[in-house]
Amino acid sequence: MANKAVKVGLLGLGTVGGGVARLLMEKRAELSAYLGVDLQLARAVDLEPARAEELGLAPGVFSSDSWSILEDGDIDIVVETVGGLEPARAMVLTALNKGKGVVTANKALLASHGVEIFQTARQQGVGIAFEASVGGGIPLVRSLRDSLAANRVTSCLGILNGTCNFILSRMTAEGAPFDQVLAQAQEKGYAEADPTFDVEGTDTAHKLAIVASLVTGAQPRLDDIPTEGITKITPLDIQFAGEFGFKIKLLAVLNNQGGKVEARVHPALVPHDHLLASVEGPFNALHVNGDWVGQVLLYGQGAGRRPTASAVVGDVLELARDVAAGVPGRVPPLGTQASGGRRLDLAPLDDARCQYYCRFAALDQPGVLASVARELGSFNISIEKVTQKGRQEAGPVPIVMLTHEAREADLRGALKKIDALPEIVEPTVVIRMA
Amino acid sequence: MANKAVKVGLLGLGTVGGGVARLLMEKRAELSAYLGVDLQLARAVDLEPARAEELGLAPGVFSSDSWSILEDGDIDIVVETVGGLEPARAMVLTALNKGKGVVTANKALLASHGVEIFQTARQQGVGIAFEASVGGGIPLVRSLRDSLAANRVTSCLGILNGTCNFILSRMTAEGAPFDQVLAQAQEKGYAEADPTFDVEGTDTAHKLAIVASLVTGAQPRLDDIPTEGITKITPLDIQFAGEFGFKIKLLAVLNNQGGKVEARVHPALVPHDHLLASVEGPFNALHVNGDWVGQVLLYGQGAGRRPTASAVVGDVLELARDVAAGVPGRVPPLGTQASGGRRLDLAPLDDARCQYYCRFAALDQPGVLASVARELGSFNISIEKVTQKGRQEAGPVPIVMLTHEAREADLRGALKKIDALPEIVEPTVVIRMA
Repeated sequence: MANKAVKVGLLGLGTVGGGVARLLMEKRAELSAYLGVDLQLARAVDLEPARAEELGLAPGVFSSDSWSILEDGDIDIVVETVGGLEPARAMVLTALNKGKGVVTANKALLASHGVEIFQTARQQGVGIAFEASVGGGIPLVRSLRDSLAANRVTSCLGILNGTCNFILSRMTAEGAPFDQVLAQAQEKGYAEADPTFDVEGTDTAHKLAIVASLVTGAQPRLDDIPTEGITKITPLDIQFAGEFGFKIKLLAVLNNQGGKVEARVHPALVPHDHLLASVEGPFNALHVNGDWVGQVLLYGQGAGRRPTASAVVGDVLELARDVAAGVPGRVPPLGTQASGGRRLDLAPLDDARCQYYCRFAALDQPGVLASVARELGSFNISIEKVTQKGRQEAGPVPIVMLTHEAREADLRGALKKIDALPEIVEPTVVIRMA
Repeated sequence: MANKAVKVGLLGLGTVGGGVARLLMEKRAELSAYLGVDLQLARAVDLEPARAEELGLAPGVFSSDSWSILEDGDIDIVVETVGGLEPARAMVLTALNKGKGVVTANKALLASHGVEIFQTARQQGVGIAFEASVGGGIPLVRSLRDSLAANRVTSCLGILNGTCNFILSRMTAEGAPFDQVLAQAQEKGYAEADPTFDVEGTDTAHKLAIVASLVTGAQPRLDDIPTEGITKITPLDIQFAGEFGFKIKLLAVLNNQGGKVEARVHPALVPHDHLLASVEGPFNALHVNGDWVGQVLLYGQGAGRRPTASAVVGDVLELARDVAAGVPGRVPPLGTQASGGRRLDLAPLDDARCQYYCRFAALDQPGVLASVARELGSFNISIEKVTQKGRQEAGPVPIVMLTHEAREADLRGALKKIDALPEIVEPTVVIRMA
């Protein structure tokens, strides 16, 4: 059954696809020696022939027709770097149905259509690998899928969006507001012209959906993941958080304890001495707790042509090794043979418990603190720390509290009452604590 | 070819082996569901039957005879947690020669006899896995072997010995001397009664040898790895390093650039803002630089029953999956098919280049600094920073310098001259900078 060559078809020659093409060409000899079979970039498809020229593809490799890959019986592995939902979904499903292994970096696709895609891969007995879909070059998908497979992963905290982390790092370093730093990030290429997808947390939610599926063997619905972005984070809150010994980071949070699974995306206060607080700029990291392994942190570059291509080609090597050994469907998509494309039901956010940072905008008059504390107390929320800054010249004064652990629904109930108090003049700012 | 059950034989029921037995028993249902075949702890061997009783092994599983595993044709995978060189070496070779896959956490064995063991595994077409041999539960062996395989790893810096890291962390936090902190560590179980193996760097060198073999596909000789431990580190040097913005850590250093491979173990100054500086207490971490992936950090618990068992059983799952799929020798021991059990020649330490921390013990008289600087200059070593503390009541004053990058042989030459100066009254303390 052993093949003499493994042929790769590459769909898309954009930032990631172009990097994959370059890596496969530059290192063909080393990668083939690693595998013990010739690893060939047999065909690459893009709508812009100029990209193929720039990459110096060998004659006959480039095509503008994706069917030249999908219908070629000689191509063993399809790399999808087209991005987006369609036509990527149709291409991936077609490739799998034609018996080809698939490598994809497409987190939106897997987060939205993972059940269908993973079921198809299993039915066809072929491999699908997606290391690059979460955390760029960081070897976290395979670590969760295989190396840590003896564990029940009880929790994960991830910094999984480089744009948001860059913006929050700069806001912290410079005390500058979100809009100003976003503009800087756009100039430097760390943020898209339309940054919504990143700064509203959607991209992080996609990645969290994939992490959750690796941890549980079942797929959450994207809509079930409560998602808050970083657009409302202010220099004032970053400063108060810092005074309490915390940094503000956009986190993907997964809790998998006591039979309930919680998954959510939101900014959070991270203690200065937590390793995630040291993850700065465009870097990503996933902090994992396993019932046997304890704490593990996996850190690296979460995006960019070269790190992402490293992960994609690492996946190509895995699938190619299995193709060469005659066992193309050796590993189920999520590692476990028990996964049947199940849906994962998430616990409602109302039942989540954590500590909270609350900033109240209060009139500078006696008794406000007591009123706020009374309302919190009536919802069984106790206060761990409080700071009230000296009188302002005019306008409201900020009262900042860190609560003890409380139930989300209780906090929301208390805040509704508090924000209705006559002494509270702006909606209270709430940020969860990690 | 698919098996209905995969049978595991466990050699050794000590700290790690006992953890492996417990994990395999506790999670038999989950692990079997993950694999899609029944994963059985078929036999466990130890010289102390009391250990088997304590673990509650099922009747018929315990034996005091290792041949009951090695000669049992039904056992597919042998887990070696005996430790040490013999009889572990003979057991591992016998298991491989009988066509069994082997999982081992034995870094001393692999560092000393890796070539022989890896060649035997390849000849017999069976798997050998050793995630737990470096960094305990951290998924670093498989990350280097597979996930990052598209990269040339250009450098690694590792904190790979929890005992040393615990001692250095405590010395830094308390300003206490080595001996006192070692005694604390021994009390807490973080250091052995005879700590030589850890504190002299030998254990770290074993792990570095394994990392070097994963990175290069070839095996260094242990004797070729220059190895310094932490016994000479003083609170004074930790304090000076701190003033310059560094922590002192025991590092495994691998450089793989320009065709030369350097591997060495020694204490080093790590900048406060480097992630490795945040690795405290008994934790381990490996910082990797790859030509495509850039920086990656892998962090977690480097020792202990549960984290190590997590890694061992992760390896068992990998080998079991391959046994079940009928491809027991799918992955070569070091990942690459190109590895033929080659020896790795290391570059001589004399040619290494780094920055150095030097503490001179000088008589408190004019012109000493000039004399020292002149000798350094005559060996082309320039000074980046220098600090000279105020006069002592009596005795020598410390002069501390950080050099610019210099060649090791040049530094040693200059120090020979400097230590012969009449104004220098004690041998100069030198610590490399990361």
